[in-house]
Amino acid sequence: MSYQAPLRDMRFVLHELFDVSAHCELLGNGLDRELIDGVLEEAAAFTGNEIAPLNRNSDEEGCQLVDGNVTTPKGFRAAYQQFVDNGWASMTGPVDFGGQGFPQLVAFTFHEMLMASSLSFRVYSGLTEGAVLALHKHGSAELQKDYLAKMVSGQWTGTMCLTEPQAGTDLALLRSKAEPQADGSYKVSGSKIFISGGEQDFSENIVHLVLARLPDAPAGVKGISLFLVPKFVAKADGSLSDKNALSCGAIEHKMGIKGASTCVMNFDGATGWLIGDANQGLACMFTMMNDARFQVGLQGLGIAEAAFQGALRYARERLQSRGLAGAQQPEKAADPIIVHPDVRRMLLTQKSLVEGSRMLAAYTARQLDLEHGASDAAERKAASKRAALLIPIVKAFFTDMGQEVASHAVQVYGGHGFIREWGMEQLMRDSRITQLYEGTNGIQALDYIRRKVLGDGGSELNALIGEFADLADQASARPALAELGKVVGERLNQWRELSAEVIAMSQRDAQEIGATSVDFLQYSAYVLLAGFWLQAAAKAQDALDAGSSEIEFYQAKLHSAAFYVRRVLPRASSHREALLGGADCLMAMPEDSFAF
Amino acid sequence: MSYQAPLRDMRFVLHELFDVSAHCELLGNGLDRELIDGVLEEAAAFTGNEIAPLNRNSDEEGCQLVDGNVTTPKGFRAAYQQFVDNGWASMTGPVDFGGQGFPQLVAFTFHEMLMASSLSFRVYSGLTEGAVLALHKHGSAELQKDYLAKMVSGQWTGTMCLTEPQAGTDLALLRSKAEPQADGSYKVSGSKIFISGGEQDFSENIVHLVLARLPDAPAGVKGISLFLVPKFVAKADGSLSDKNALSCGAIEHKMGIKGASTCVMNFDGATGWLIGDANQGLACMFTMMNDARFQVGLQGLGIAEAAFQGALRYARERLQSRGLAGAQQPEKAADPIIVHPDVRRMLLTQKSLVEGSRMLAAYTARQLDLEHGASDAAERKAASKRAALLIPIVKAFFTDMGQEVASHAVQVYGGHGFIREWGMEQLMRDSRITQLYEGTNGIQALDYIRRKVLGDGGSELNALIGEFADLADQASARPALAELGKVVGERLNQWRELSAEVIAMSQRDAQEIGATSVDFLQYSAYVLLAGFWLQAAAKAQDALDAGSSEIEFYQAKLHSAAFYVRRVLPRASSHREALLGGADCLMAMPEDSFAF
Repeated sequence: MSYQAPLRDMRFVLHELFDVSAHCELLGNGLDRELIDGVLEEAAAFTGNEIAPLNRNSDEEGCQLVDGNVTTPKGFRAAYQQFVDNGWASMTGPVDFGGQGFPQLVAFTFHEMLMASSLSFRVYSGLTEGAVLALHKHGSAELQKDYLAKMVSGQWTGTMCLTEPQAGTDLALLRSKAEPQADGSYKVSGSKIFISGGEQDFSENIVHLVLARLPDAPAGVKGISLFLVPKFVAKADGSLSDKNALSCGAIEHKMGIKGASTCVMNFDGATGWLIGDANQGLACMFTMMNDARFQVGLQGLGIAEAAFQGALRYARERLQSRGLAGAQQPEKAADPIIVHPDVRRMLLTQKSLVEGSRMLAAYTARQLDLEHGASDAAERKAASKRAALLIPIVKAFFTDMGQEVASHAVQVYGGHGFIREWGMEQLMRDSRITQLYEGTNGIQALDYIRRKVLGDGGSELNALIGEFADLADQASARPALAELGKVVGERLNQWRELSAEVIAMSQRDAQEIGATSVDFLQYSAYVLLAGFWLQAAAKAQDALDAGSSEIEFYQAKLHSAAFYVRRVLPRASSHREALLGGADCLMAMPEDSFAF
Repeated sequence: MSYQAPLRDMRFVLHELFDVSAHCELLGNGLDRELIDGVLEEAAAFTGNEIAPLNRNSDEEGCQLVDGNVTTPKGFRAAYQQFVDNGWASMTGPVDFGGQGFPQLVAFTFHEMLMASSLSFRVYSGLTEGAVLALHKHGSAELQKDYLAKMVSGQWTGTMCLTEPQAGTDLALLRSKAEPQADGSYKVSGSKIFISGGEQDFSENIVHLVLARLPDAPAGVKGISLFLVPKFVAKADGSLSDKNALSCGAIEHKMGIKGASTCVMNFDGATGWLIGDANQGLACMFTMMNDARFQVGLQGLGIAEAAFQGALRYARERLQSRGLAGAQQPEKAADPIIVHPDVRRMLLTQKSLVEGSRMLAAYTARQLDLEHGASDAAERKAASKRAALLIPIVKAFFTDMGQEVASHAVQVYGGHGFIREWGMEQLMRDSRITQLYEGTNGIQALDYIRRKVLGDGGSELNALIGEFADLADQASARPALAELGKVVGERLNQWRELSAEVIAMSQRDAQEIGATSVDFLQYSAYVLLAGFWLQAAAKAQDALDAGSSEIEFYQAKLHSAAFYVRRVLPRASSHREALLGGADCLMAMPEDSFAF
């Protein structure tokens, strides 16, 4: 499937909305506008020309497991080598281990492009970047020396081995064990499932980060430790040992992302080393959680962009029926289906969700950068709180959105949407995993309401709402934006009231936490996107007022903002009404009565 | 995947809500309660024991095309023989050609079971039943004599050959041709795509109904005629000719229903006969449209039931985390996930949508029966109008609902939902076609608003709303149902007002027809289901008041009704607000600006 990175919109978001040059100056990383735009161009060429063409075949061919070795689809191995050689793998890696230390506010655009080009291909490197984060933050100097540089460069890959058959969401049920050895190493044993990239054929070593229990560990999540268990142990002289006592027992047959190997990994007394302190495994994992969940959110965004591009292409080419107000292109056998209001409804829903989400992604990326890189400790803390609030929204909302937008693409193609060669149904299948892994979207919603909203009595959320309310007030004072500003301002007030109500309900009855969680997250996301659309409209109006020559581009932003507020934002109403329906009607049904 | 027909709920709908025995007496078909319940038991055994076990493998194996012959998945051929031998194929067929003439109000339950067991398997016979309807209504006595009985019995199958590469929704663009021959036959030529069951390996003959143009036909849809083009021509002595000049050129590789062959059919001067009058092909097809769309609606319903059953099974078995109000089953390692409010939200959404839709299916089936079988002409006409109003809702809403309910099932399974062996992701993939074929759901919504609502100025719709409003008034007068009755009554009033507004908007601006269509259909469906849930609650309350021993069953109905109204019906609000957003914000974006 063809894919072209949406460079104009990315530049709008980076430069016009978030002033990425000033951000980079503040972070002191030496990136300027010219350099950033150059990277974006290169990234667009790499993903569009090298990665996207592999995606369709990767779905047909999938991965094969033969004698414990996994073969990835044709072209993946070579493309990965290019990914490493051209420095894409090390883009966000720590500078002290050879990484380029790009801020998330720049890197997220490349990662979105990767997701859009081939989610399967991206899975391998995405997991490696997560492992790098955990190892860089918590690993001993020796482990870092032996493993980190090659993981940062992408020469070696990494995995996250958390899930076991009986322990998915509930890691307290984890059974894998680690026996301490005299030399300070451990023998790790257990069976892990759903391990993305557990085996593949394009890196000479794979570094597994494995959650397991020490012999004397307390029960539950407080007794879980994190271990580095390499496929081949790095020896002092830089050579590799014989294969460690671990193996890929099976690969899963899945709905989608068939080019990504999803492995059952068996550890049979494999040699490993503790990362961080004993029994602090979950805390070590949490280090990378925000980034990992942000990346999964970008998967939803990337797939949505690819789906929108596919749908738009088809809607402009496919001739079928005449417009409701008469023939629009009478010289042709029929009008292109983009003339039909309902096709436009689907396309604009896609477009406004994708572009709205891209603004939220950038905003969140900026917080992640400031959390780590701001010079002022208070600023770092503030950014950390803001990022923590937004991450579950980004993960859950973007991935639900990705699935919806891909489904609209299938619908725009009509019967052809169901046919594999057109590629739209693959996007639906590939994106479906994003709602499940890295914490299901239900778990994201619980995290949002419990830790991020109830956790501080709603104060961070209210601060966020307040900032957007100020923007709405400013917009309302400008005639061209008054109507938009008014509608968004009213929703922000409603959000503030609703969050107070949700907090009160949850304090009265713990079941309300879970009963309101998903609807409240969705509600929040739709209103938040309205806030960003208002910002985009204001910037577009500024540009038009200043006499920009890109009139069509900025007018399109105003049209999209109006569409979003009038035709998508109303979804917030139903989420609000539904969650106010409360927990009683969920809990009243006896378990046995479900089956009637 | 295991499947058990929901017999208790089906009996509730048939006997308690719609008094099927009285209905059958009115139709004079000799069916009584005992017979009907017996058929349901047999149907449940056949679908649960014989068909459902084939479904998972049929997805893995798919269909193969070798030298023009199609091989269907293992077991399909033998199961189809059983389907024919046991009389399931002829259940609704016309009595004068060996059919059993079951009313839809009974048969729909069997068809729902078939869809739930294996949509792929059902596709073949579903198309045959459609072809029977068209041939029975419009075919010459000679064609009927030669073909109909064997199609009714299921010994021969039928197809519908409408779509061509350039002509999907827009049949005006159809190019296939039919040349008249001296003997009264025609030579039919053209290429048709998306022909379900165009080839298969389980019937000795396949009777294609083909849309094509006569040499002198006017352009557009007024120049389309319908032809019967058999794979083998039935000769006067009952034997079959050599193969007709038609062939399966390819089979499609699809997202789902892989056990159903989807064929490119090439007609190369194949011998055929006109069905009905010249240039009346579309009218002849319309004969079977209501039934065909009703059947596709049932596909959504059946898949949804199967998905609900799968999700419920897993939610009761899977142990993960503890309830929000503390451990519910402290003796186990964790609580079953059905204790979590958000899992219950998904299960109850599934359950209330499935059972609500089943009531609407039964109501619609009853209208279809009365349309054909009521003794009074005015009653037939009234039923015909009511059925016509409801069919697009049934087709579009049930199939969207099927996709949603299947997706909830995937979500309840967590990561396992994405793995093929568990079967949930197959339900999502299989059901996705139902939103596309037999008229996309966007086309259904246009049919609903344009022909069925605007077509009579909203009078049939208002009559329907009025009938439900009376029920709401009655319910409001009963203390136990007062709250439910009030909420539903308010929505019905809102529906009446909204339909007046939609009509007015559409009369002002033709683009509003397409701009409001999908949201208005969805709005209508959610309110309609609320009306049926109110009826169900009233019947349940009646039974409880009368001292029924099935207290849990009837209380579950009351719980489901309350859940539906409080947590699902609010979706109507967002559809209403969105459609009131109007067409302007859809049409304002210039075509070129979508691509920014």
